[in-house]
This record gives sequence, structure tokens and C-alpha cells, in this order.
Amino acid sequence: MGEIRIIPLTGIPEVGRGDDLGALVGDAVERASGLEKGDVLVVAHKVVSKAEGRVEKTDDVLSVILREARAVRRRRDELVIAETEHGFVCASAGVDRSNTPGEGWVVLLPRDPDASAAGIRSALGERFGIAPAVVVSDSFGRAWRQGTTDVAIGVSGMSPLLDLRATDDAAGRLLESTIIAVADELAGAAELVMGKAEGVPAVLVRGYRAGPGDGSARELVMPPERDLFP
Amino acid sequence: MGEIRIIPLTGIPEVGRGDDLGALVGDAVERASGLEKGDVLVVAHKVVSKAEGRVEKTDDVLSVILREARAVRRRRDELVIAETEHGFVCASAGVDRSNTPGEGWVVLLPRDPDASAAGIRSALGERFGIAPAVVVSDSFGRAWRQGTTDVAIGVSGMSPLLDLRATDDAAGRLLESTIIAVADELAGAAELVMGKAEGVPAVLVRGYRAGPGDGSARELVMPPERDLFP
Repeated sequence: MGEIRIIPLTGIPEVGRGDDLGALVGDAVERASGLEKGDVLVVAHKVVSKAEGRVEKTDDVLSVILREARAVRRRRDELVIAETEHGFVCASAGVDRSNTPGEGWVVLLPRDPDASAAGIRSALGERFGIAPAVVVSDSFGRAWRQGTTDVAIGVSGMSPLLDLRATDDAAGRLLESTIIAVADELAGAAELVMGKAEGVPAVLVRGYRAGPGDGSARELVMPPERDLFP
Repeated sequence: MGEIRIIPLTGIPEVGRGDDLGALVGDAVERASGLEKGDVLVVAHKVVSKAEGRVEKTDDVLSVILREARAVRRRRDELVIAETEHGFVCASAGVDRSNTPGEGWVVLLPRDPDASAAGIRSALGERFGIAPAVVVSDSFGRAWRQGTTDVAIGVSGMSPLLDLRATDDAAGRLLESTIIAVADELAGAAELVMGKAEGVPAVLVRGYRAGPGDGSARELVMPPERDLFP
């Protein structure tokens, strides 16, 4: 394994409903001198949601959060840890009040982030002749640890999990330590260059050779029967 | 922010008790053409623990896990989610049965991973005239999400958290979404090149300009009064 480069894609304008995100990201990729085989494109969900019109103006954010949640896991004061329709567990069911189109607006999660990723992947594949793996990312808090890290909420063109188990382990004893959530690590790596307010909503990760295959970010969701923190 | 490079440090031999890890990593840094200002060195805790003699042979891993834990959070079959003496919540209290010195051996967490990081930082600073920030990493599972990601269990020469709050928010409402656990993202990024079995226990992250300042990986631990998943 050689080195990995995390390359910011700059100059993407403010994205609004109906914008062709595949084209805007493609322009930025072109400015960054194109795609190479094995590239992974990480796109912040914010711009995906904005392009897809998943924003709304509200004076009652809590109602929006509860509508977007299929279950509330914990609540303390204004903090709501909720399970989204996709199965993700995160603060405010992914409803975001920062970097919105304006005061009183919120940004919701894309309805089908895997499909969003697939759309961008397909647009880039047509334009450049190379279809990168695409990860749609969001910043999630974690149980037991302070601060957010970016994780994958949508994936196309790669498996989000890298299974290093040499052999099957019927008891599942080694499961947790030998399956790596590489899509989450890619999202987190991309966040290091994205920053939050610097106008870099997309990043190319070059040199991480995602294995062949496809997958869904839903694979990153712990199935209920294995969830020890319901 | 320009691009970030994640550079594998190769050729580090198998590490054993008493080895001078600062020197071994320094040799690898030299082979990789030295240090630049702002570099972050990520070192897998496995080699730190081995150098510090935090390994043992046992036929009763569960006893070791329970001894290393200051509290057990959940247990199901062979899976023990425990809180370590450092406050980290992870599987098996960080006791690891893979990549050990041999059959029947386990690798424990370093007793004071911040101090381990500081020792390596100091050795490199003396040798190269540039002291990189150092992160000691481990692979942790997460609540609600499948697969592990590497996170920081020790830090020296940087703050593990990047606080992007423009203004203090007395209610703490925005807290979770605007403090980024950059040390965890750096550890996860490094894992992408480390792999698990490829003999790359250390990685340089170049181009991520860690802000000035120092900190401890303990800052990444959610304080009990904010822990919603005890």
C-alpha cells in the first residue's frame, strides 16, 4: 500500500435545489486534473440535500426532528438522539441547523443517500470514463466519545466494510475487531480537508484502492439483534 | 487548506518488550525522507504496548479483560463492552487477541497512552529538530454501527478536538455538531494505509496543520454527566 492523498475539490458554488451536483462536482474534478482509477469521491451530504431540495424553513425544529425520526433513542434537554428512516442513529435525526440556506432553515438527510451517491458516480463515470467510488458523508456524534467524526451515510461503487477475517468465526468473537468500516474512515479523512465552513464540500481520496464490488451504507447500521445500546 | 498525504512508514521490525520505539519509528521516518512542520505521526497502539511490555500469556482471556476493565457496560456471550481505566469504552477493555506475540498471548492497552505519545514525540523532536504531533491509535467498535474505525487513545502535541463554535452556546445545543474529534479522524485516516496485517504500524499525516497547543486523549472521553449510554 503506497500513500493516500486527500485532495480538496474547490470552487464548487453554493448549491441550491435542482442544481446538477454531478456536473458541479465534475467541474471541480476537472479543475483538480481529473480522475484516476481507484479514486474515492467523498461528498458532504449538505450539498446533496440542498440539490435534492431536502431543506425546509421552520420555526419548530423539534417537530421536524421528530418527523424525520422513526424512533427516539434518548432525549436530554434539546439533545435528541434518534434513529432515522435509514436506520442511522444520530443527533437530531440528521436535521441540521448549521450551514443552511438561511436563518430558520434546516437541512435534512437525503431520502436515499446510496442512490444520491450512485447518481454522482454515474455522472462522473459518463464524463470521465472512470467511475469513482462515491461516499456521501455526514458528521455524527458518538456514544462515549466527545466530538463528531464524519461517517458514510451513502455509498456507491465500493463495499463500506473491509472484512479481514481470515476464517469464519462461528461464535462471532472476532467480528468486531476484524471488520473495518473503511467508508467511515474515508469520510473522516475527507473531513480533515473539508472543514466545516471553508467551501470544500467534496474531496477526492486517491491511492486507497477500494476493492471491487458495490455496497450500501445500510451495511454500516448495526442490526437490531446485535445492538447492545437500543 | 491544501491536500493531505497519508504516508506509510515501512520497514519497522517486529517490536518486542524494551525496544526503543522512538528510535525504530525515527529510522522509518528517515527512510520516508524526514519530517515537515505540522506533520502528525499516528502509531498503532499494538507496537506501543509491545515495546512497553503490555502483553501477557494467558489461558483465561476473560479474567484479563475483567481485570483491565473498571466497569463492564454490556455483555453478550463472549462480547464484553467495557470501560477501561483510561475511561475509554470499547470491546474487551482493549485486550486484543490478534497480532499478538504468539498463540495464547494478548496485547493490553498502554497504561498511559498520552505519555507513550509524548515519549515518541520527544524522541523525534530531538532527532529531527521537528516534533510532530503524535496520535496513538486503536481500532474500536461503535454503538449502532458495524465495523471498527481507528480512534485516538493517546495524543501529544495537539488538541484532539477542533472547536468550530463561532460563539459559546450556553445551552450546549450546537455542541455536538461543531466540535470535531480530529484526532479520531487522523487515526482513522492512518488506518486506511496501515491495514491490519501489512506491517505498517506507523503513518505520517502531512498537510493537516494541527493547531498549536497540546492535549490529552482523555478529552475525547464523554464525561459521565453527558453520557446518555452508560
